[in-house]
Amino acid sequence: MSPRPAIDYADAAPEVRAVFDDIKRTRQVADVNNFWKYLAHDPPTLKRTWESIKEVMAPGALDALTKEMIYLAVSVTNGCGYCIASHSAAARKAGMTDKMFGELMAVVGMANETNRLANGYRVPIDPAFEQ
Amino acid sequence: MSPRPAIDYADAAPEVRAVFDDIKRTRQVADVNNFWKYLAHDPPTLKRTWESIKEVMAPGALDALTKEMIYLAVSVTNGCGYCIASHSAAARKAGMTDKMFGELMAVVGMANETNRLANGYRVPIDPAFEQ
Amino acid sequence: MSPRPAIDYADAAPEVRAVFDDIKRTRQVADVNNFWKYLAHDPPTLKRTWESIKEVMAPGALDALTKEMIYLAVSVTNGCGYCIASHSAAARKAGMTDKMFGELMAVVGMANETNRLANGYRVPIDPAFEQ
Amino acid sequence: MSPRPAIDYADAAPEVRAVFDDIKRTRQVADVNNFWKYLAHDPPTLKRTWESIKEVMAPGALDALTKEMIYLAVSVTNGCGYCIASHSAAARKAGMTDKMFGELMAVVGMANETNRLANGYRVPIDPAFEQ
Amino acid sequence: MSPRPAIDYADAAPEVRAVFDDIKRTRQVADVNNFWKYLAHDPPTLKRTWESIKEVMAPGALDALTKEMIYLAVSVTNGCGYCIASHSAAARKAGMTDKMFGELMAVVGMANETNRLANGYRVPIDPAFEQ
Amino acid sequence: MSPRPAIDYADAAPEVRAVFDDIKRTRQVADVNNFWKYLAHDPPTLKRTWESIKEVMAPGALDALTKEMIYLAVSVTNGCGYCIASHSAAARKAGMTDKMFGELMAVVGMANETNRLANGYRVPIDPAFEQ
Repeated sequence: MSPRPAIDYADAAPEVRAVFDDIKRTRQVADVNNFWKYLAHDPPTLKRTWESIKEVMAPGALDALTKEMIYLAVSVTNGCGYCIASHSAAARKAGMTDKMFGELMAVVGMANETNRLANGYRVPIDPAFEQ
Repeated sequence: MSPRPAIDYADAAPEVRAVFDDIKRTRQVADVNNFWKYLAHDPPTLKRTWESIKEVMAPGALDALTKEMIYLAVSVTNGCGYCIASHSAAARKAGMTDKMFGELMAVVGMANETNRLANGYRVPIDPAFEQ
Repeated sequence: MSPRPAIDYADAAPEVRAVFDDIKRTRQVADVNNFWKYLAHDPPTLKRTWESIKEVMAPGALDALTKEMIYLAVSVTNGCGYCIASHSAAARKAGMTDKMFGELMAVVGMANETNRLANGYRVPIDPAFEQ
Repeated sequence: MSPRPAIDYADAAPEVRAVFDDIKRTRQVADVNNFWKYLAHDPPTLKRTWESIKEVMAPGALDALTKEMIYLAVSVTNGCGYCIASHSAAARKAGMTDKMFGELMAVVGMANETNRLANGYRVPIDPAFEQ
Repeated sequence: MSPRPAIDYADAAPEVRAVFDDIKRTRQVADVNNFWKYLAHDPPTLKRTWESIKEVMAPGALDALTKEMIYLAVSVTNGCGYCIASHSAAARKAGMTDKMFGELMAVVGMANETNRLANGYRVPIDPAFEQ
Repeated sequence: MSPRPAIDYADAAPEVRAVFDDIKRTRQVADVNNFWKYLAHDPPTLKRTWESIKEVMAPGALDALTKEMIYLAVSVTNGCGYCIASHSAAARKAGMTDKMFGELMAVVGMANETNRLANGYRVPIDPAFEQ
């Protein structure tokens, strides 16, 4: 656990409340996650991170579920405990079934394995991949 | 570049040729990538890795394109040069457009950023994510 | 928690006590951190690691605070829970304010993001950076 | 090298040129680095990343040189070749001497070593670090 | 802790029980570790992973103890808490003494340090290593 | 390639030559690797790193070959190109055969895969591993 407390809505400065309000409105949730309550210790980072995530995670050429699964794949590769927990929940909310999660983990595991095989065997890039 | 040469089909042992033939048949390609020509130095790893990838990357609850993009997200996070090159090509072949690639990179970059913010602020996992 | 117990001063061999004494004297602390009490299971590593850290972390061309913040940046990037906790404390003791911590995290997060954008877009090194 | 070409100013769309102009003005340089010429393939990411970096890297509680050295510490830890090259140059431009670089590398190396010793010995966090 | 429960033998489907039985027989243990009870949520991954590990970890040109120590070195480098705990136990069962563990950690720490020194100094590969 | 030149013996200061001489004598080689010629830009790091490596890599409870293979396993996991090249050569010189290398890579790949499966499934540590 962190030695610094989370900053709850009731104790937040107006600039922090404005971000919390936008998160709650955008995500249709009653309260924001701990991640935001800790970033609130640094309001410029809170604001910038939320605005970037809102832009990046909005459905576009990729749908919301695909984006959440990619987020989870990165978090699992990095071994970020908080991020794995929160984005597993977010991906499930976006429609990820148990079967999809199982296949996602299988791909993530396999990619981490072959990344090292390519490193260890010092495989040169095929000319076809440069064109 | 690797100090060991790639093992081409013409020089390969029968057990290696059998795997190469299956890769070419499954992927409908004229020749296999360097990755397989280097793994051919260790036939049991070549066979096991190919059979695992064939099973893992087959369309299931997730389609082939989603799986390739997840593979690419992991490879970019790990900074594996060969894997980024080969799986960028594979994802494009499976239908990834420039716009999809751009959004994929944006999500991968953002996830790598917030993974560290969660680490640094030592954010405790929300009780809701444990249920 | 580790299955092996920490080795406290009272139970330590003379060669371990000598290192503990030097840590306490150098850092002006009443007791050493758990890190050293666990390394004490391997006295040569304890001695070598302490002497290296003492040399590396001493103020030189970079002051003590800058060095602690760099240490923390690495630990956050690697996701090492113990190291984040202990070097956050060490950096604060060396003078890091909340505002400095916030900016440090913002830089660490941004660097982890752009590292992956550079990987994914396969950006070639500018000739100017080679000179 | 990337299979996709850099997008130079002469070939860039107006929204890309606007970002390039702001980078050149802010950094007082004649041309932008390859990083920006590749991100130009995805204008929203180009714009968002530049605006974030401009905000994050501006001197505040930490000066510009300290921020560049932290950026470099992260890039070295992640092994991002492009980022190491470009931020070594940026740090030198901001005033990093050879001696400062040497000490920076020493701290980065030592932190990566002790991160693993803490992991391997499974060192529990000292109660004092939780307060 | 995971929000999903472990799948115990008593509640497992026949295809899962078959894998559990083979693990127990091969390793001569009364019950399987949590790792397998969680993978049991995805029977194809459970089966493929067990068969791969059984093949890879069998003594060959490298003995079982050496293989377990290499496994542990990777897990410590990645900071995977579960894997460090389980493979520390497995390596000890295979014969790793306290002294061997101490030397293993010393090598792992040193390799993680010099990996970053090589990155940061941008050391070009010696021609002799290419032959 | 690095923008700074390697420091060769002929151009080295006496304190650098002393380290180079000890490396050549200890390893029975005619010249030192590039790694040392680049560290020579910072003599204290050169000296400390060489003395640490000499102590850590000396045969003890683990023989020289096992230590080199562990070093290589870490370098492959981190994707450090220089370190993979130099420690592949060192491990071969210490007696690693093609077959041993193949098994080493198989273990490294598998450990990187299962590290992520353990992360993704959020597997809790078995009580037996805590004792």
